[in-house]
Amino acid sequence: MELKTEEIKRIEEELSKYIDSEVEFILKVGNYILSSGGKRLRPILVLTFAKGIRGENHPNDYPLAIAMEYLHTASLLHDDVVDGASVRRNRPSANVVFGNDTVVLTGDYMYANALYLFSTYGNIDMIRNVSDTVKKMAEGQLLELKKIGDFNITEEEYFKIVEGKTAVLFASCCYVGAELAGASREEKDSAYRYGLYLGYAFQVIDDLLDYIGNKERVGKPVHNDLREGKVTYPLISIRESLNEEERESVKKLLRDIHPDEKHIKEVVDMVIDRGGKELTVKKAREFVNTAISQLEIFPENEYFSKLFKLAKYVVEREF
Amino acid sequence: MELKTEEIKRIEEELSKYIDSEVEFILKVGNYILSSGGKRLRPILVLTFAKGIRGENHPNDYPLAIAMEYLHTASLLHDDVVDGASVRRNRPSANVVFGNDTVVLTGDYMYANALYLFSTYGNIDMIRNVSDTVKKMAEGQLLELKKIGDFNITEEEYFKIVEGKTAVLFASCCYVGAELAGASREEKDSAYRYGLYLGYAFQVIDDLLDYIGNKERVGKPVHNDLREGKVTYPLISIRESLNEEERESVKKLLRDIHPDEKHIKEVVDMVIDRGGKELTVKKAREFVNTAISQLEIFPENEYFSKLFKLAKYVVEREF
Repeated sequence: MELKTEEIKRIEEELSKYIDSEVEFILKVGNYILSSGGKRLRPILVLTFAKGIRGENHPNDYPLAIAMEYLHTASLLHDDVVDGASVRRNRPSANVVFGNDTVVLTGDYMYANALYLFSTYGNIDMIRNVSDTVKKMAEGQLLELKKIGDFNITEEEYFKIVEGKTAVLFASCCYVGAELAGASREEKDSAYRYGLYLGYAFQVIDDLLDYIGNKERVGKPVHNDLREGKVTYPLISIRESLNEEERESVKKLLRDIHPDEKHIKEVVDMVIDRGGKELTVKKAREFVNTAISQLEIFPENEYFSKLFKLAKYVVEREF
Repeated sequence: MELKTEEIKRIEEELSKYIDSEVEFILKVGNYILSSGGKRLRPILVLTFAKGIRGENHPNDYPLAIAMEYLHTASLLHDDVVDGASVRRNRPSANVVFGNDTVVLTGDYMYANALYLFSTYGNIDMIRNVSDTVKKMAEGQLLELKKIGDFNITEEEYFKIVEGKTAVLFASCCYVGAELAGASREEKDSAYRYGLYLGYAFQVIDDLLDYIGNKERVGKPVHNDLREGKVTYPLISIRESLNEEERESVKKLLRDIHPDEKHIKEVVDMVIDRGGKELTVKKAREFVNTAISQLEIFPENEYFSKLFKLAKYVVEREF
């Protein structure tokens, strides 16, 4: 699926337009991470929902679409500090280039700037939705931190993490797009759920790519989750089938501060051999179907057909 | 001046009421820092302005007064990470107890929660003011970071830092209180300026206390600013009077990663001997007078008389 459209070009052009700080470092750090690429899925969701419902985009759609990318950027910046990351999108991560302190504060600025844009171009209903989302993002990341090394993380806990990491922000993007177009309560709720389930599918596939992807495509080293002691869906999906000895081996790997690559490879192979890939893709397809079913109440037009295809593409992108 | 009133008791009681996270760590970190004391000046400013204008507090005043304390808390949390602090208010700072990663994310949660409270109990005008304030707070802290070790920091840059560190949040508190009471544009602007100049005075005195205070009263080690290479008003006020040799000595101290206590003491004594204390108090009094003059347009009642005394108290608190 080709996402490089006129729309993305316009998003790229507008990306740095709404950072007006006098502090040059904010522009520097902000532009470093904003210019590092990414699929701009979040602004696309805002713009497409607004267009799908009212037939066209209005000028106020753009600053709010960009604001959602700023929220994503802020969360990536803080995430890099929290994870002690060194690489993102094939480049040194911002914390390595600028230092943790600068990155934390630039993240704060980006969060506040996004909310400021909403207070200028949006309304209180959007702000309630978006600030609730930022709360859930922080909660999800904290839960992920607390669950590091925990072989017995429940499926519920895992999906709470996925929700905070990806799904709620997708959901808010769709909600904001619908609200921009003056959608009804029912339409806004359906838009929110479309984004939520799209996000679940997206993150579950992202977690699978950490098992089976290659470094260049994924933009960061693979097998990082296991290396950092994070239990994700591919492992959860086959966990029950492991015997005592295999469980002990996985638990040891998760607790290991400097795991050796051979051990990681063994566990990856074990997860794939047991069908972790197929089970994860199956789960993602279920989410995609739930997402797609939310589109039924909307008019049939090229924009909703794009959102339909986008959901399909999330699962099929690498297979 | 006795600040321990019925009002403070109520603020203390309500402080943890508006954190409803399921994630137990947020409650733990949030309560750790919220329970560590502090003068609750920010909620008091909100409540007193609202009461001064409309004669009484309404139920919605409290969640927004608390939201301003949450913003302050979030900024302290991130500040501790940025500074690599180890002590705050006579206790180990949150980053030492819980780790940087947890503290960054809890700060994010507190910021988002404050904005969420504004979307529930406030209005879009307050949100624009408050989110602009959070932007300026991040900018001020970033500028402070960039100016570390810089003997030649301009007075303008120093006050930009002071603005972000303290003054804009005080200003927003007064603005929110006025807006809660349905104040006019002119009243809201005066309230904002009262808070801004009160904040300047407060921070300038805080910077002086780092020179002349004692550890127990200040709640953290003294002479920290010089130790960390931060140039503040007491030094700026006497900078012109230093000869070449003295300047070199101060510059060396500011650049020194492990400055010795004798050298710090020398520079502190030099600043005090040249009149840094008197010049700083004078500057603070000027700010207090500007703050007080903003109150003229408001009715004369016990609440505005309290705000008058509060401004006086800021400079006189330790002398």
